[in-house]
Amino acid sequence: VNLKKYYKAEVSFGFFVFELPRGTRDFSPDDMYARRFIENKLRQVFQSFGYTEVQTPTFEHLDLFTAKSGDQIIDEIYSFTDKGGRNLALRPELTAPVIRFYVDRFQMEAKPLKFFYFGNCYRYDRPQKGRYREFTQAGCELIGTNTPEAIAELISMAYALVRSVGLEKINLEIGDLTVLNLFFNVFNISSDLKDELIPLIDKQDFDSIREVLQDHDFSLQDIDQFISILQPRTISEFQLFLLKYKDKNAQIDISRLNSVLTLIQDCFSIQDVQVNLGIVRGLEYYSGIVFEIEAPSLGAEKQICGGGEYELLPLFNTRNVPTAGFALGFDRTILAMEMEKKAMPVDSLDYFIIPVSEEMISYALSIAQKLRSSSLKVDIDLMRRGIGKSLKYANKRNVAFAIIIGEDEFEKKAVLLRDMDSGKQELVSLEDLLNKYKQ
Amino acid sequence: VNLKKYYKAEVSFGFFVFELPRGTRDFSPDDMYARRFIENKLRQVFQSFGYTEVQTPTFEHLDLFTAKSGDQIIDEIYSFTDKGGRNLALRPELTAPVIRFYVDRFQMEAKPLKFFYFGNCYRYDRPQKGRYREFTQAGCELIGTNTPEAIAELISMAYALVRSVGLEKINLEIGDLTVLNLFFNVFNISSDLKDELIPLIDKQDFDSIREVLQDHDFSLQDIDQFISILQPRTISEFQLFLLKYKDKNAQIDISRLNSVLTLIQDCFSIQDVQVNLGIVRGLEYYSGIVFEIEAPSLGAEKQICGGGEYELLPLFNTRNVPTAGFALGFDRTILAMEMEKKAMPVDSLDYFIIPVSEEMISYALSIAQKLRSSSLKVDIDLMRRGIGKSLKYANKRNVAFAIIIGEDEFEKKAVLLRDMDSGKQELVSLEDLLNKYKQ
Repeated sequence: VNLKKYYKAEVSFGFFVFELPRGTRDFSPDDMYARRFIENKLRQVFQSFGYTEVQTPTFEHLDLFTAKSGDQIIDEIYSFTDKGGRNLALRPELTAPVIRFYVDRFQMEAKPLKFFYFGNCYRYDRPQKGRYREFTQAGCELIGTNTPEAIAELISMAYALVRSVGLEKINLEIGDLTVLNLFFNVFNISSDLKDELIPLIDKQDFDSIREVLQDHDFSLQDIDQFISILQPRTISEFQLFLLKYKDKNAQIDISRLNSVLTLIQDCFSIQDVQVNLGIVRGLEYYSGIVFEIEAPSLGAEKQICGGGEYELLPLFNTRNVPTAGFALGFDRTILAMEMEKKAMPVDSLDYFIIPVSEEMISYALSIAQKLRSSSLKVDIDLMRRGIGKSLKYANKRNVAFAIIIGEDEFEKKAVLLRDMDSGKQELVSLEDLLNKYKQ
Repeated sequence: VNLKKYYKAEVSFGFFVFELPRGTRDFSPDDMYARRFIENKLRQVFQSFGYTEVQTPTFEHLDLFTAKSGDQIIDEIYSFTDKGGRNLALRPELTAPVIRFYVDRFQMEAKPLKFFYFGNCYRYDRPQKGRYREFTQAGCELIGTNTPEAIAELISMAYALVRSVGLEKINLEIGDLTVLNLFFNVFNISSDLKDELIPLIDKQDFDSIREVLQDHDFSLQDIDQFISILQPRTISEFQLFLLKYKDKNAQIDISRLNSVLTLIQDCFSIQDVQVNLGIVRGLEYYSGIVFEIEAPSLGAEKQICGGGEYELLPLFNTRNVPTAGFALGFDRTILAMEMEKKAMPVDSLDYFIIPVSEEMISYALSIAQKLRSSSLKVDIDLMRRGIGKSLKYANKRNVAFAIIIGEDEFEKKAVLLRDMDSGKQELVSLEDLLNKYKQ
């Protein structure tokens, strides 16, 4: 009764209220089959590197995110007050929650901690291709070590994740905020000027960088040199380039970065890597070595992975240990796979069982149950619609074999097995059919 | 700089803002390993029954849920207004969203549609054991058929899901709102009185039922008979019980229910099932056959699964087809497994590699990478902490074998393989180690 009243009201208002919320998505069986397949591939890579999975709630206290990213993040966050007056927010990212979890429960555990996770995140953004209001991220945090081998392994794992789903057209670029700072010193760039430049460097807005430096009376030669520092280079190009600064009255010590780069190349066998000191990451909390992986096929929203070393623990009034991590955009990874025309895995059924008459339903169900107990995917006609229509339905469901059961088959304790590809049919005894899967 | 300012403010206020939101949970690596294992078990069962996975957004328009469950649900829902003025709600359940998805995209598809899903749901409830503000549900919807075999298969799948994770102490009870209505007619119970009784029946509050019927001048004999209808019985007890009504000037036609019960017993081989016409489910939208699975070990919050046939499509101003489904409480299922002392699966590492000195790190990393490419779980000492401490760490990580690499091993192109259980060590050539996993 209640329902009918509402239904009438809805019709009388003349609009249809039950829409998908703007910027969100439903996923069909085809979507989900591919998404779970990819999720499992990624999980396997995380686990092969000794990372273990964690999960945090979908919402957190709003403070956690404003503390990390500043009040301006409120503009793009889904925040709300719960019935107990708490200011909560749908998480826009997963690092702050995982670090909160670490502080709560794992501070006393043996280091390093290697956590990975999958989770949905939320941003109130203008929806567009590759940008949704609810999106899925994979990611990880490495807590308690910052040796070159630890950072090299972290970056190599990001690369391995992206490659594990078959992506080939990707760019891995590594930056180093410590080394960039050394260059700021070489050029006598003040702390204020640095704060002005960082966002421009992040945007690769070289014209504006040039203007700002001109305004501060830098020589054209210095400006050219500074901008050339921010260009991507192969590892060997980068090492050659650095020789220029040997005589510049400054020690540009990049031994740590060099160790990381060498390990990535030699031990993790990644050749298509570039050094780009212009990679500073959008967020203020990064420090040390940072990196990004792009899929240029995606156009404007081409970054599919990014991360590096960061400082977040001071916020928690707790003992500081090294932290690093990265986030991998799950949705963009799938978009990139589509751009590269990677074949997505397709779901199928092992058997579709068709009882020819009502009397055969019991026998058909029993056979279905026996096959299912061997972990096979088995469906059965539940609409009593006859052979023709059932075969048509089975075709749509991507079935390997149809099992047709009439009185003849029942009496012979057999089934008529139809290969859905070739259309060939043969009578098979029930015993033979089931024995195939016994172990 | 920004961060430090905040950090100081926090300390001066003297409280710690970064708490887990009330009623929510973090999941540790041990938790997640078990949860993913159980999720995969359940997914395999859904798939073996020919169901395919779908996913909908975490939030929906609030209207969707108030239309289904009435305005009173707002009291226990997380609702909020987004920056575009939309009234949204974190989903309290998954059936309405999945039916919305069906109406949007699958109305023209061949029937039946068999959808399953996993998703987090949200209720603003007083948190207690087995009741969280964010909780995980598994579930499914069967759209387009209501033959006895379809309903029997649905209920049997629910039972198979619960059994697949090893639960043994469970009760499956099946009710039928159509049959219950027939009994209402037999006893001349008016529609208003029925509305009064249904919530009491749902709560199994027999004292109040007795009172209400007395107030309406029912004879003590009729009251006893009516209450006896609402008791759980085995299938054969139920069939015997029905004979009483043969002479009661009424056709109690339970042939459909009987067909479903017979199929469940005979084809799906489920013996421990009871008929309980007192199962009416809390929600108004159920119709026809309904069921519940309880794990009595859980005490007050013992229901782990429930569902049945329902009417939701009329709400969508669209062609009505039969719908049925159920929800399985993922968290309660795990609690019930713990109560039954089921061993939870435990994560492990295949290898933990220990470079004895800094010079061995490259060689160690290369070996790690080679083993990882065979999908093995391999970790490596990233803290340069020496053999003793590394072995201690490896022990905590549940490692099968440690691989110790010193200069001797390096020169012999070998590794020292240590069985972490027995402590036995042997020198193994790198070739032999890697060949073990080549295919």
